[in-house]
Amino acid sequence: MGEGVKLSEEQRLDWLRLIRSDNVGPRTFRDLVNHYGGARAALEALPGLARRGGAAAPGRICSAEEAAAELKAARARGVTFVALGEPDYPPRLQMIDDPPPLIAVRGQLAILGRPLVAIVGSRNASAAGVKFAERLARGLAEAGFGIVSGLARGIDAAAHRASLHKGTVAVLAGGHERIYPAEHAGLLEEMLAEGCAVSEMPLAWEPRARDFPRRNRLISGLALGVVIVEAARRSGSLITARLAGEQGREVFAVPGSPLDPRAEGTNGLLKQGAILVTEAADVISVLEPILGRGLEPPPAREPAQEAPGGVEPGDDERGRIVGLLGPTPTSIDDLVRLSQTSPAIVRAVLLELEIAGRLERHGGGLVSLL
Amino acid sequence: MGEGVKLSEEQRLDWLRLIRSDNVGPRTFRDLVNHYGGARAALEALPGLARRGGAAAPGRICSAEEAAAELKAARARGVTFVALGEPDYPPRLQMIDDPPPLIAVRGQLAILGRPLVAIVGSRNASAAGVKFAERLARGLAEAGFGIVSGLARGIDAAAHRASLHKGTVAVLAGGHERIYPAEHAGLLEEMLAEGCAVSEMPLAWEPRARDFPRRNRLISGLALGVVIVEAARRSGSLITARLAGEQGREVFAVPGSPLDPRAEGTNGLLKQGAILVTEAADVISVLEPILGRGLEPPPAREPAQEAPGGVEPGDDERGRIVGLLGPTPTSIDDLVRLSQTSPAIVRAVLLELEIAGRLERHGGGLVSLL
Repeated sequence: MGEGVKLSEEQRLDWLRLIRSDNVGPRTFRDLVNHYGGARAALEALPGLARRGGAAAPGRICSAEEAAAELKAARARGVTFVALGEPDYPPRLQMIDDPPPLIAVRGQLAILGRPLVAIVGSRNASAAGVKFAERLARGLAEAGFGIVSGLARGIDAAAHRASLHKGTVAVLAGGHERIYPAEHAGLLEEMLAEGCAVSEMPLAWEPRARDFPRRNRLISGLALGVVIVEAARRSGSLITARLAGEQGREVFAVPGSPLDPRAEGTNGLLKQGAILVTEAADVISVLEPILGRGLEPPPAREPAQEAPGGVEPGDDERGRIVGLLGPTPTSIDDLVRLSQTSPAIVRAVLLELEIAGRLERHGGGLVSLL
Repeated sequence: MGEGVKLSEEQRLDWLRLIRSDNVGPRTFRDLVNHYGGARAALEALPGLARRGGAAAPGRICSAEEAAAELKAARARGVTFVALGEPDYPPRLQMIDDPPPLIAVRGQLAILGRPLVAIVGSRNASAAGVKFAERLARGLAEAGFGIVSGLARGIDAAAHRASLHKGTVAVLAGGHERIYPAEHAGLLEEMLAEGCAVSEMPLAWEPRARDFPRRNRLISGLALGVVIVEAARRSGSLITARLAGEQGREVFAVPGSPLDPRAEGTNGLLKQGAILVTEAADVISVLEPILGRGLEPPPAREPAQEAPGGVEPGDDERGRIVGLLGPTPTSIDDLVRLSQTSPAIVRAVLLELEIAGRLERHGGGLVSLL
């Protein structure tokens, strides 16, 4: 796989503590580590950041004991943590905007280094949809692709089942100890011989509705492309398709009758330019040339503009920036211009607000106060 | 409608005689009239042409009596002949490569001047296909489009039926006295109040299998675009789609499940770039801007390079050109170059061979001996 360097066990513990702490998501994790030069320093800075950001109550910081317990429980369950930048981290996943700093993997790590295709779709799929998903998964698996999906009822389960013996990856919205839906726990066990299950959540995390869209970015992020087989008008599969597009992944859709409500979503995707799929060859012919090109270098990250632990905003600057913010999403560029400070200062203040649980980040560099 | 000039009754008779004579199709008709300056002169030249072209037996030339009888029978049946170039000739049809010199129209001529859309598809359509064709035809008719189709069972009949009261056009493969399928004669009668039936064949012509593809060029040629609703892999509807593409018409296709053999053709068209249709608005949004632009001028025809009745090939030239021809399609450009004659001479020899029933014309200016 990649060229990365493995974390020390101590670093891994710090990373886990940081990502498990309140108000720290994948993007904030990256900003914190960039700003403070490492997870340990970031952990130490959290209380001060929250205070300066005006937190109503201090956010919970994951203790070393908690993190160690999670690592131990994971080991006992055969779950391996892989950190962003480590050699086993899935190469395409690290190119998305918000890669999880740590993924917890159960089963065969090696499949994550193979070319992967996601197949997703309706939970209440039609018999024809299930049959087609199986046929497609089988065809793509035989062509050497690992099949990624979300372990849901309907299309997802059909795709996993048909590629069981060739290698398939379930991305979980909850933790490894909370398989959802529970009826697919047996299917998941069968998958582990050739495939794996991936989660970015704590082992015992019970998935909530809002964890599914978050999880969907990993389904598309792991894959070269995403095939949507049956999707109603406002379904979760369409979120996966949108995320796939934003991540620069190929989006494929299976056509259906205009009179079939389960084809509304996929036909809509086709109108928007998704690639029409009626057989595995339609997917293979598009993805093979991409494979041939190999991986492109990750998109350039915003360069760190200050030394680790660099600028700290003054009260005056902080006040100006917070004053400019409100419930309406505002661009970071505007904040820099209107506050007459530097991008570094604005980023530092936003980090404080974020850790204080007061900031919401939107797409396109927009932020608002919560 | 158009700006054209009406033929005299005498000219109309000559036109009908010429197009009803053996080995004279729409393209040959045009070449003959261009070459000899009119239908009458062309009729007089036919025997000589056939002889010089080496006809095994002389082709039948339609007599003035026969043509007069057809005109009389047509009038009795309420059928009007409209000639290419006349004001009532459908404006878009005259822009195709091989417009019929005369069309026989029964019903309302006026609908041929309105914007038309063709809806075609499988004869053994599914219930869903029929329902969708009805919905689409209704929607397009309500938006002001006349609906063109082929009066076949299944999709065609559904499209006609749903647009009966707004105006729909049936293009026949046979003559007006041989409605096919016979069970749709009643439907056709109902259509005539607001719409019409169109045929280029003699009134009593019994349609043969090969007349249907020929007829299909008129379905697409009359319309701004063609919607294919359900089509199996090698169906006649796909021929209409191909002809529509060649004529520069918009090609629309309705998606279907990859497991439905009746969607194989339409899904295939979508892969080749047809526009996906799930509702009338998908068609309207593409065609309305075309309407707004109005009709483009007909494509430039090859200019007549000699005076009417011009060059006659010598035996020597004829021999060289015929010697170059065989069963393999050859380009007219190559014939000119290799025979060291002029394009006019080559065209004249080809016309002789055609009238003699010895020439086949292929696409792209290729010809071969039969």
